Amino acid sequence: MIFSSDNWAGAHPAIAESLVKAAPGFAAAYGTSALDRKVEGLFSEIFERDVAVFFVATGTAANSLGLASVTRPGGHVFCHTEAHVNADECGAPEFFSLGARMAAVDGAFGKMDPQKLAAQIARFQPGNVHAGQPMAVTLTQATEAGTVYSLDEIAAISEVAKARDLPLHMDGARFANALVALGATPAEMTWKRGVDMLSFGGTKNGCWCAEALVFFHPGEIGDFAYLRKRSAQLFSKTRFVSAQLEAYLEGDLWLDLARHANAMASRLATGIGASNSARLAWQGDANELFVILKSDTAEALRAKGAVFYDWPVPSSLMLDSDEGLYRLVTSFATAPEEVDGFLQAIAA
Amino acid sequence: MIFSSDNWAGAHPAIAESLVKAAPGFAAAYGTSALDRKVEGLFSEIFERDVAVFFVATGTAANSLGLASVTRPGGHVFCHTEAHVNADECGAPEFFSLGARMAAVDGAFGKMDPQKLAAQIARFQPGNVHAGQPMAVTLTQATEAGTVYSLDEIAAISEVAKARDLPLHMDGARFANALVALGATPAEMTWKRGVDMLSFGGTKNGCWCAEALVFFHPGEIGDFAYLRKRSAQLFSKTRFVSAQLEAYLEGDLWLDLARHANAMASRLATGIGASNSARLAWQGDANELFVILKSDTAEALRAKGAVFYDWPVPSSLMLDSDEGLYRLVTSFATAPEEVDGFLQAIAA
Amino acid sequence: MIFSSDNWAGAHPAIAESLVKAAPGFAAAYGTSALDRKVEGLFSEIFERDVAVFFVATGTAANSLGLASVTRPGGHVFCHTEAHVNADECGAPEFFSLGARMAAVDGAFGKMDPQKLAAQIARFQPGNVHAGQPMAVTLTQATEAGTVYSLDEIAAISEVAKARDLPLHMDGARFANALVALGATPAEMTWKRGVDMLSFGGTKNGCWCAEALVFFHPGEIGDFAYLRKRSAQLFSKTRFVSAQLEAYLEGDLWLDLARHANAMASRLATGIGASNSARLAWQGDANELFVILKSDTAEALRAKGAVFYDWPVPSSLMLDSDEGLYRLVTSFATAPEEVDGFLQAIAA
Amino acid sequence: MIFSSDNWAGAHPAIAESLVKAAPGFAAAYGTSALDRKVEGLFSEIFERDVAVFFVATGTAANSLGLASVTRPGGHVFCHTEAHVNADECGAPEFFSLGARMAAVDGAFGKMDPQKLAAQIARFQPGNVHAGQPMAVTLTQATEAGTVYSLDEIAAISEVAKARDLPLHMDGARFANALVALGATPAEMTWKRGVDMLSFGGTKNGCWCAEALVFFHPGEIGDFAYLRKRSAQLFSKTRFVSAQLEAYLEGDLWLDLARHANAMASRLATGIGASNSARLAWQGDANELFVILKSDTAEALRAKGAVFYDWPVPSSLMLDSDEGLYRLVTSFATAPEEVDGFLQAIAA
Repeated sequence: MIFSSDNWAGAHPAIAESLVKAAPGFAAAYGTSALDRKVEGLFSEIFERDVAVFFVATGTAANSLGLASVTRPGGHVFCHTEAHVNADECGAPEFFSLGARMAAVDGAFGKMDPQKLAAQIARFQPGNVHAGQPMAVTLTQATEAGTVYSLDEIAAISEVAKARDLPLHMDGARFANALVALGATPAEMTWKRGVDMLSFGGTKNGCWCAEALVFFHPGEIGDFAYLRKRSAQLFSKTRFVSAQLEAYLEGDLWLDLARHANAMASRLATGIGASNSARLAWQGDANELFVILKSDTAEALRAKGAVFYDWPVPSSLMLDSDEGLYRLVTSFATAPEEVDGFLQAIAA
Repeated sequence: MIFSSDNWAGAHPAIAESLVKAAPGFAAAYGTSALDRKVEGLFSEIFERDVAVFFVATGTAANSLGLASVTRPGGHVFCHTEAHVNADECGAPEFFSLGARMAAVDGAFGKMDPQKLAAQIARFQPGNVHAGQPMAVTLTQATEAGTVYSLDEIAAISEVAKARDLPLHMDGARFANALVALGATPAEMTWKRGVDMLSFGGTKNGCWCAEALVFFHPGEIGDFAYLRKRSAQLFSKTRFVSAQLEAYLEGDLWLDLARHANAMASRLATGIGASNSARLAWQGDANELFVILKSDTAEALRAKGAVFYDWPVPSSLMLDSDEGLYRLVTSFATAPEEVDGFLQAIAA
Repeated sequence: MIFSSDNWAGAHPAIAESLVKAAPGFAAAYGTSALDRKVEGLFSEIFERDVAVFFVATGTAANSLGLASVTRPGGHVFCHTEAHVNADECGAPEFFSLGARMAAVDGAFGKMDPQKLAAQIARFQPGNVHAGQPMAVTLTQATEAGTVYSLDEIAAISEVAKARDLPLHMDGARFANALVALGATPAEMTWKRGVDMLSFGGTKNGCWCAEALVFFHPGEIGDFAYLRKRSAQLFSKTRFVSAQLEAYLEGDLWLDLARHANAMASRLATGIGASNSARLAWQGDANELFVILKSDTAEALRAKGAVFYDWPVPSSLMLDSDEGLYRLVTSFATAPEEVDGFLQAIAA
Repeated sequence: MIFSSDNWAGAHPAIAESLVKAAPGFAAAYGTSALDRKVEGLFSEIFERDVAVFFVATGTAANSLGLASVTRPGGHVFCHTEAHVNADECGAPEFFSLGARMAAVDGAFGKMDPQKLAAQIARFQPGNVHAGQPMAVTLTQATEAGTVYSLDEIAAISEVAKARDLPLHMDGARFANALVALGATPAEMTWKRGVDMLSFGGTKNGCWCAEALVFFHPGEIGDFAYLRKRSAQLFSKTRFVSAQLEAYLEGDLWLDLARHANAMASRLATGIGASNSARLAWQGDANELFVILKSDTAEALRAKGAVFYDWPVPSSLMLDSDEGLYRLVTSFATAPEEVDGFLQAIAA
């Protein structure tokens, strides 16, 4: 009953196999092998336009290098207060963009409120060097609260960004989970709504290590290849990332895995909704649930082998003093039996 | 007949298998799983003392983060002119250490000359803020010239560094190749000769992506864990690096693979030594050879399918106008037949 | 009627004279002249202990380099939301400390609330590399809201910082104004209350360019001299900063100038308190007032030659729709006649 | 007999007076006062075209920020081995440009050899991310060896830079000394020969602190104003820099001061040329001389009150074992009597 994080899951067998298949023989290094080129082509197919794809080692790297690539002095990157770049990356975005500030914007359920975003941006008057300057907007899809921006909500954020000519970045550590939740195409959820670059995450959804930064305007990437190398993020044997992504993308495996993860979260949510001893803090849309439990109940569940994290209580949420907030994450590897076992344990 | 680089080789079957074995099931993320702990223990065993081990994505990352961890303002890192940190990392060591300068020291055959090193360090007078200050010394083992520092040569470099209290880093991208060339133990080639930290490379010797920074004084690493995270180098599913290294280290597979690579280089060297149409530019000790060929010969070899790189001619090397310098690299995956085929092609 | 900022004032005649006196002759450069040494001694006298003093070019430099000197990766510097480091330095503290984050703490009247500070620090659990780590606390004295922390309030902030071993920095751009407002000694307002380093500002109070970073534990400054030089903040002809500070400090000129500036603000406050067409947004303690005026009134005042800035309205302040918030700053150079002229203009 | 450095000199009386004149009254801060605008206009007049001028605190800042403004990842800045940016700035250019490397180019008498420069640039192949990329060229005028590039020599360097589209920066810490040595106009020595930006130094030539970065293509400076602010180099009371420069530039005072300094060096050189106990290491063109003395002689001169520095002996210079190399610098403040006294002391 492991609901701690989707990065506690391993690798999907098809992806493991693909790596084994790629093991023998020689191939050009540093992203120039035939397989690398093929996978780049897959990305362009999936996104229905020419894109530039750069593999990096971690989601933090994808976010940080993407934002660094549009850095200007005194820059402010607008993000949700709970965004990974703001809360969980140990200052990497600030470091790689040389001191850019993550400017936190509030909004319910993990989503930036476009009006608040607009208001915060509006406070920066062009030419006021003391205050600094707006640099970029980044949104997380699916959000850290387990919710998913609708296409219209993405467009609304995008509109605010474009009004000030700010590039729009999407942190897609759980891109596939959001995509299947919306039933949208990759193009619809990104560049067709004004997203300029995407941190495309495969690791949480069945890969071992497959993170890519996708640029939707390949003509504008400048010397990003140098930036990645200087950031120590250029793998030599890139074929092994490509091999993972080949298996991940072909035959829509990635969407199937995400559908499974979301379905498991849904099954869990339904069970919790029917329970007397647990309730959802808010509705999730993808593969993360935030659940209110009595502390005793949480302890009892953990004693029975359930693994999940305590979560900081947002100020908007009112809990009884003997209650706590907990995060449950499902993944491609979550078995229905684990879900049902957890629900039975709650019922007990 | 691929002799371009050892990073054109794939992965050894035992390492591929180990990854497949690690694929199913759940495991704690970010370096805290049982397998991660086990592999850390293996490192301590192999080095015969408690060490701290941090996985990173690339050799450039291992070098850069290691040097960054001992950074001070105005710092100079002394390295050989041809060192990877100086010639092939696009300024990553400078970037991560915030402007530290790679101070190039000459020396024959890719090895720093200890007297020249001492002379360059001596030019920095404590307190002269204009000139900056010595910060660290780094040596590459095996060197970029395919040679290997003897244990005494390492000790000589170390003595110079210690006389000014400078930490000594070793770039071990080809650590195993050097180790078996010397017939030394890992301890003898590192901390017993004064090495304080090591970039331990597994990728070039049969792994897919297995690079680690090893600290020999674990009590002095400060908040390196934060530095790595901020550098976007903390993998989430670390078990997959550990799985590679488990297979790599157990049963001395790593040493066997390096022995094979070195033996192939030796076989190649012997053949070239006996040839009329090729000669070694200098004697190599590990798995890289530097060969002088007539340009016509090089072209003919490539036409027959041989892959190898042109190499910049050091000023100390005198070539005829129709000759060029070429680098040949062997690896765990180099078959004797390829070597012999290449030698026959030269003879033809 | 210039109330825009104390940096619109020029230089006090005694300071101008001191510079002229220092103009002829030769003197050792880079902070080693007899006059430089003398002024360092003055600082130690004034603060009643040995201190280390480093001149820099701007208050932003003093703040940024001070904080940079205690930087660690993923570091968070806790400051008031309106602090200069957070609101007016274009990311310089983040840049010089390589990505440290300014972590804004709320509190009424420009002062950090110690309980909120403690709560925010408490959210960082040692060893959680994702969240980063607390690095320093900085308070501004006098604050950006024109208020002054009492000695007990400083001690309360200090206590919270020390409980987590965080160094405490004071931004003293208006140090003298705060000092005379409290009637405290420099020692009492700093190290006797746990302040570890101070940005000592002379520019706003009658100098041309005299900013210093003062360390109260000179044994712990490491290689700060290198950090300053690398930051391009080491003046060559330091005697001219020293000359300003000699005149500034001797005979308590600095305190007299600050007393005058504060008295002018007080005179203005009294007049505004008695007025029907203006009111104070809150009580100021030093040389800055925040005043609520009808927009029409503000416009009329400006038409009569008054110069002052609009100010963002804090969310805690309720204004009528035809009102605005304005900042008025007095300085050593403010004449009583200007104050009275302004008050008459309001009355009209 | 102070020949240690031109920054040991004080301030010229006319400049001191100008500061006193600027002391009273209020003026807009941060470079927006009438005087600031006037001085910007003077620069455009002097350079015979519209220029953008940014004051900074130090020559190191002017160099570092100028180079930082054209920074790209993995960048190499080509400079002479003895250039200030390479030898005397504690890594500031690397820090502000985030790890750019100072790539040292040799050349006789402190001047880069254009052919060597071309050869070094040629080693960087576009797209080779490992090696990094050329970013800028910087030359020092007058050089650190006391020589002056002729207009043709500047054009030759410029041509090499332009062939690779590299911006050309000039470190003009001793700009005036070079200018009067050549008898050229400011325009002829800069943009008419392809210089894109200039560190214009006034401090060494009679100001207290007056350094400016001059851009000859004001339309291409992007958000340099933010870069300067983020670098903590934006003075608040800029009128006091402007006041110095107003006096410095008006009536060609700056050229007169430089002519005097150069004349004193010339007088010194003539005397040394006629001496039996001293000789010039090479011919200087401006206000620095490099002199070979027996160590005994140097000691005796110092005993008589002469102040000058030992200088590192270039490998191209052959000295007897009892000889040393010494630098003598004259300035606007050097009296002929001091020169003659020194020459008499040598003769004695």
